[in-house]
Amino acid sequence: MKKHNFNAGPSILPQEVIENSAKAVLDLNGIGLSLLEISHRTADFENVNNEAESLFRELLNVPENYKIIFLGGGASTQFCYIPYNLLEKKAGYINTGVWSKKAIKEAKLFGETVVVASSDDTNFNYIPKGYTIPADLDYLHITTNNTIYGTEFHTDIDSPVNLVADMSSDILSRPIDVSKYALIYGGAQKNMGPAGATFIIVREDILGKVSRQLPSMVDYRNHIANDSMFNTPPVFPIFVIRETLKWLKSIGGVPEIYRRNVAKAELLYNEIDRNPLFVGTAAKEDRSLMNICFLLQPEFESLSGAFMEFAKERGMVGLKGHRSAGGFRASCYNALPIESVEALVACMQEFEKANVK
Amino acid sequence: MKKHNFNAGPSILPQEVIENSAKAVLDLNGIGLSLLEISHRTADFENVNNEAESLFRELLNVPENYKIIFLGGGASTQFCYIPYNLLEKKAGYINTGVWSKKAIKEAKLFGETVVVASSDDTNFNYIPKGYTIPADLDYLHITTNNTIYGTEFHTDIDSPVNLVADMSSDILSRPIDVSKYALIYGGAQKNMGPAGATFIIVREDILGKVSRQLPSMVDYRNHIANDSMFNTPPVFPIFVIRETLKWLKSIGGVPEIYRRNVAKAELLYNEIDRNPLFVGTAAKEDRSLMNICFLLQPEFESLSGAFMEFAKERGMVGLKGHRSAGGFRASCYNALPIESVEALVACMQEFEKANVK
Repeated sequence: MKKHNFNAGPSILPQEVIENSAKAVLDLNGIGLSLLEISHRTADFENVNNEAESLFRELLNVPENYKIIFLGGGASTQFCYIPYNLLEKKAGYINTGVWSKKAIKEAKLFGETVVVASSDDTNFNYIPKGYTIPADLDYLHITTNNTIYGTEFHTDIDSPVNLVADMSSDILSRPIDVSKYALIYGGAQKNMGPAGATFIIVREDILGKVSRQLPSMVDYRNHIANDSMFNTPPVFPIFVIRETLKWLKSIGGVPEIYRRNVAKAELLYNEIDRNPLFVGTAAKEDRSLMNICFLLQPEFESLSGAFMEFAKERGMVGLKGHRSAGGFRASCYNALPIESVEALVACMQEFEKANVK
Repeated sequence: MKKHNFNAGPSILPQEVIENSAKAVLDLNGIGLSLLEISHRTADFENVNNEAESLFRELLNVPENYKIIFLGGGASTQFCYIPYNLLEKKAGYINTGVWSKKAIKEAKLFGETVVVASSDDTNFNYIPKGYTIPADLDYLHITTNNTIYGTEFHTDIDSPVNLVADMSSDILSRPIDVSKYALIYGGAQKNMGPAGATFIIVREDILGKVSRQLPSMVDYRNHIANDSMFNTPPVFPIFVIRETLKWLKSIGGVPEIYRRNVAKAELLYNEIDRNPLFVGTAAKEDRSLMNICFLLQPEFESLSGAFMEFAKERGMVGLKGHRSAGGFRASCYNALPIESVEALVACMQEFEKANVK
């Protein structure tokens, strides 16, 4: 049975990316060696690394004064490395949920950290608006998409201070104006590739401004100066990133994937709003295109297990909501075909017929 | 043509590991999904993670009071995390080359750091001996195998203070007594798997003793408490580690691989010592089983390019010595079959016949 992969991350990748990656594990470019057993300093891998960088730059229109690096350790490591590199006096954070809170916790170890706005009053079901960003911040940090609650910043906000964005879960899903950000980072394991690599896009002039001494691996400048090869990089994850970016370019790049993501999200949100069994959890204007969160209406709550089973029988994978939000979550990342959303909608409608008299 | 893979790292892996890893990229355990697109919280991956840990423990006889974790970021990241976690007053390092020096540099950011012994007087071609380890150190750090110079600690040294060892390039190549170490760490990309994962074996009681505050991702205790899943782990590299450890167990574990490694190294060192063209670079008693470094004798130095070409035509890959040592380096990691060493020896003998009248 075909699986419909709604995993929240690591998550669905395009089939051709998976096939090319498996092939490279057996033999890279016909050189008679696996991608896993070659030096990262060979032309074969340097080409992969360089192409991953240049495709990423091209797809997002990254200006020349921004550098791109790929590291290991996940976005969680950057929660600490960002204040390490950037926080001299005061940092501001917008608190939109668990991942923001984790980032805030690390920043506090490095200097004064203020929460500029928060949606914790209603379990983070909206994106804060109408706040004032203090002009004396070293940077303002936002989490652009909140996987657990299904909320998303739909525009690139205007910030009078350096804007730092964790885009782990919506990078490359919609057009963005990179020049409005000072630093964009994230784990690759949603729209860009597998677990094990982290991307950082940084405007170079913001670096080297703090007075503290930085460990070598923490200092972004070392990775920039060595094209992400300051130490042995996560070779296989970077290869899969390159394949994923090639795929994205081949289908028409970010404008086309955005069109597809909007179509998928509209289809599913329309069904959630129409179907008397279900209710969306996020404020409508802040609904994520990537993670679509919904509950059973209170009077149908007892059907929760039955719906999960019903969906599972129809090949749906990864629909369980995060434990801190409950209900269901359909993650509709770039590689998810609209057919999977159609299948989920059909499943919701069937379930309605079976349960609403 | 069959390749003989002498790469220094990332380096050769067993063929069955490569094949099983490629299969899992296409479909893990027949679940209809790629290893790359499942949640790390599923039983399918948790089993992989747990088995990697338990096989590693079994193969090295790791005592129960030691914890094992797998992280991203490479051994270079640990050069900083180790003093972050362990250095309160004073740390000691034995300087056996480039990797030791990099580790020393990071430690200095966190506290007093003394070099207890060094072989820098002769470009690190031996392992220091006869030094006294100060009793007031928080820990003594050693690099057990030095890939660039081809030197190796052949015994587990006796240390009156906590012994910390970077075993990136000789882990699992010979039996060790883990109980003589407080912490053992390394990048996986030689004997354990591909680039992208780092292993740490740590005696739990040494943690939590420093007064500084630790960022969450730096604090080993967070990773221990979460079985390496404090954040999204490097899923694919950990899978390949599991496969590599299964392979090692299947052939007879560390005692058998040690027997093979000794046989391979003896074969090649004997040829280096016999062949009038070549000379070994490391002190004989400290010669590495893993990285066998040699030069052309001074009178034959002009043949360097010709020998590289000669070897390349016979399928030899990765024989070029590191730029800071020159000459040649045959890395003979666990997965390298003795047939490859035999082929190299034959190649050296053929080259001798062609060039020594």
